[in-house]
Amino acid sequence: MAKEITPRSEDYSKWYNDLILKAGLADYSAVRGCMVIKPYGYAIWENMRDVLDKKFKETGHENAYFPLFVPKSLFEAEEKNAEGFAKECAVVTHYRLKNDPNNPGKLIVDPEAKLEEELVVRPTSEAIIWNTYKTWIQSYRDLPILINQWANVVRWEMRTRLFLRTAEFLWQEGHTAHATQEEALVETKQMLEVYADFAETWMAMPVIKGVKSENERFAGALDTYCIEALMQDGKALQAGTSHFLGQNFAKAFDVKFVNKENKTEHVWATSWGVSTRLIGALVMAHSDDDGLILPPKLAPIQVVIVPIYKGEDSKAGIDAKGMEIVNALKAKGIKVKYDNNDQTRPGWKFAEYEMKGVPVRIAIGARDIENNVAEVARRDTKEKNSVSLDGLPNTVEKLLEEIQANIFNKALGFRNESITEANTWDEFLQVLDTKGGFVSAHWDGTGETEDKIKELSKATIRCIPFDNPQADGTCILSGKPSKERVLFARAY
Amino acid sequence: MAKEITPRSEDYSKWYNDLILKAGLADYSAVRGCMVIKPYGYAIWENMRDVLDKKFKETGHENAYFPLFVPKSLFEAEEKNAEGFAKECAVVTHYRLKNDPNNPGKLIVDPEAKLEEELVVRPTSEAIIWNTYKTWIQSYRDLPILINQWANVVRWEMRTRLFLRTAEFLWQEGHTAHATQEEALVETKQMLEVYADFAETWMAMPVIKGVKSENERFAGALDTYCIEALMQDGKALQAGTSHFLGQNFAKAFDVKFVNKENKTEHVWATSWGVSTRLIGALVMAHSDDDGLILPPKLAPIQVVIVPIYKGEDSKAGIDAKGMEIVNALKAKGIKVKYDNNDQTRPGWKFAEYEMKGVPVRIAIGARDIENNVAEVARRDTKEKNSVSLDGLPNTVEKLLEEIQANIFNKALGFRNESITEANTWDEFLQVLDTKGGFVSAHWDGTGETEDKIKELSKATIRCIPFDNPQADGTCILSGKPSKERVLFARAY
Repeated sequence: MAKEITPRSEDYSKWYNDLILKAGLADYSAVRGCMVIKPYGYAIWENMRDVLDKKFKETGHENAYFPLFVPKSLFEAEEKNAEGFAKECAVVTHYRLKNDPNNPGKLIVDPEAKLEEELVVRPTSEAIIWNTYKTWIQSYRDLPILINQWANVVRWEMRTRLFLRTAEFLWQEGHTAHATQEEALVETKQMLEVYADFAETWMAMPVIKGVKSENERFAGALDTYCIEALMQDGKALQAGTSHFLGQNFAKAFDVKFVNKENKTEHVWATSWGVSTRLIGALVMAHSDDDGLILPPKLAPIQVVIVPIYKGEDSKAGIDAKGMEIVNALKAKGIKVKYDNNDQTRPGWKFAEYEMKGVPVRIAIGARDIENNVAEVARRDTKEKNSVSLDGLPNTVEKLLEEIQANIFNKALGFRNESITEANTWDEFLQVLDTKGGFVSAHWDGTGETEDKIKELSKATIRCIPFDNPQADGTCILSGKPSKERVLFARAY
Repeated sequence: MAKEITPRSEDYSKWYNDLILKAGLADYSAVRGCMVIKPYGYAIWENMRDVLDKKFKETGHENAYFPLFVPKSLFEAEEKNAEGFAKECAVVTHYRLKNDPNNPGKLIVDPEAKLEEELVVRPTSEAIIWNTYKTWIQSYRDLPILINQWANVVRWEMRTRLFLRTAEFLWQEGHTAHATQEEALVETKQMLEVYADFAETWMAMPVIKGVKSENERFAGALDTYCIEALMQDGKALQAGTSHFLGQNFAKAFDVKFVNKENKTEHVWATSWGVSTRLIGALVMAHSDDDGLILPPKLAPIQVVIVPIYKGEDSKAGIDAKGMEIVNALKAKGIKVKYDNNDQTRPGWKFAEYEMKGVPVRIAIGARDIENNVAEVARRDTKEKNSVSLDGLPNTVEKLLEEIQANIFNKALGFRNESITEANTWDEFLQVLDTKGGFVSAHWDGTGETEDKIKELSKATIRCIPFDNPQADGTCILSGKPSKERVLFARAY
């Protein structure tokens, strides 16, 4: 009866898809490359959003909303940014359908309703936002502008995967405007720290903070900071980016301000974002062959209670005790579900909540109540214990903290073991092909070599870690001199 | 120095636009008919969203997310719905831009990247959602599905107005699937009650609940329930709708289920939504010539404290007392801002917070502190009182409740005075042209007459109120027999 998913060892990619579908996180849709985020998946996104939104507000940001469409003339204004996204843009060209004269009941695009200027469905909002900031900024008194937007964006990717890469996705994008370069740099770094803290403390997913190589930079940025996570199959995943945009967009949109010295300058900019991709990362970082493993801090259901009825007699008594536990857990702010649905058996429920990654499961029957205990099972280690009903809420509360810590430590151990130094090209390839993970290797600093490495190994530079130790060496591919190792990996 | 807006008596429509722009709620954008929702306006939307979202969840609904795009073949499946929205659809026809060979640095649509099937940017999501529900529903056990989505939608309106009618807007759309007609009808009504309660209790905006005439129904619905509010200029505004869709969408998308009797049936549907239009309604329902008047329950800032410094000496003492008040108010859950910005003078601040509709303003200076008082001004009545600092938080808390009630009662009084019976066509026109508001009049029940009335008077049937008294009469226009009066108005 229980749903089954392909084991990771057999086909990691299929395991991932099976899991997303069977845990009810998302579904395919009738639109190429677009997914439906189902209620359980969306509940995780809501939890992520609420935590991040609070962090953004605590760091002085406000939310706003800018148009979905970017007129082509604005889209092309910042040339590098336009070039970076032009190849994957959904373009609106018409604003009306009409009846098909040859096909009753069918519609066709009305050729008379062609737009004078095409509209690009935003792949990112720098263009439309900086065109707006232009009208908001005259003096240093108007700065900084610290705005975030929660929105959908569209990038017409050719190869898509649920959550990881979809044509439409949900994200937040911060867009800030500053009077000085220094202030913009502080902001860029601050937001990367916010992301890193979110990934580690809430998602229980260790990340490496660093800066992207020029090749991997956001189109239009002077620098892209990133957090990089490691998935269980040894592939890296970029989990969040924070861009220092310099004055590129201010120049493209002519956004100037009068500074305190009464001189006119271009404004400094940052942008930063994370997306529903994080759900894919969360799934791949922790889960196993039986289903999701969710960190308690983001789990939509933290504890499920399954009553075990034997015959009708004991039902009322078990439900009464069950609701008592529910209320005690709720009083502690724990998200708890009591599942007394009589259409399914306990064994089916156990498998279902394992699939859904509910961190703690409590089973309670008539005999348990007599003995003043309940069976408490944790999802991460599958450990089961008979636990006294006295102080059960405290026990569960501690257990949730323990699970959060355990999931993180497990992922951290794996990540730390998965950083390998390689000193020759052969070593480099061997590590990638056998062990996977991050490969720490010398690189000559040129985009050309980086491209070649990518072409030959499918590995990219994930980042140059912050505070990277400086040490002379020679590039693994070109043999040219290098001043530091950087982190390579095959990546999502 | 203070910003000024056109008085309502001079030009109501201009007053509205001035207010939206000067209070910082929204701004025009570079995209025809699309607006930028600025942080202050978005903060109101966030408050609305949080309250509604809680109500939806309390009534058993979950959030999910469906694709922005609707393939044309799905869009046209439910014929009436398609017909209703076809004339105002943004259509994506291409998925790539390329460099313009004749214009270096410019982009053009790549003709080789034409989509095989055009994608409609959702004007509403019934089509894409029912196409998905089809795969989720087999048996009565899969029902009901109670899903809500927070999303942006696009309707290519020809005449747009900030918040009230924009090409893109934000909204929520509930889409539910049920095993029986009765259950779907209960849901439709339940959600209208949720909207009505939100409008009256939170927005302080009285509404009339009723059902739409056939002409005014949502395209594809069997019945549309609505809440209708009255604006200060005597025009009505539809503030929310809840649709009983019958089996129309289930039939269009072939969504069937096996019922308890093991027979196959089509599923019953509802949909319901409110949008950022509510912000426009909120503004027009309460505000005056000095700016916004916001109900305390939705105000982003409920209390502003303005310190009045005379010379440098007293600053520290005033700020200390000010922060004491801030903390005491925060402890009561009151949203308070302490504005000690020294770039602007108190008089400027007073005008600014009046413009922004902050319900309560507290001014405090050195002399006040000596006398153990503060000046408390309420935005709605402009009343100012010297209030003892002892128990100030309690005083303010009560005052906020009083303001909420007063705003509602004022709007209710105006609305009640603005329902006028008309028994002849001349009376009908006279009421519309002089007094405005709702006109309660007999109508023969035909769409034809309704159309004619609209053509001749610009008034539409806003609704047939629930529990409408039945009384024989004759239609104001056709003179044909009528069984009840219905509510007409000119409307936004």
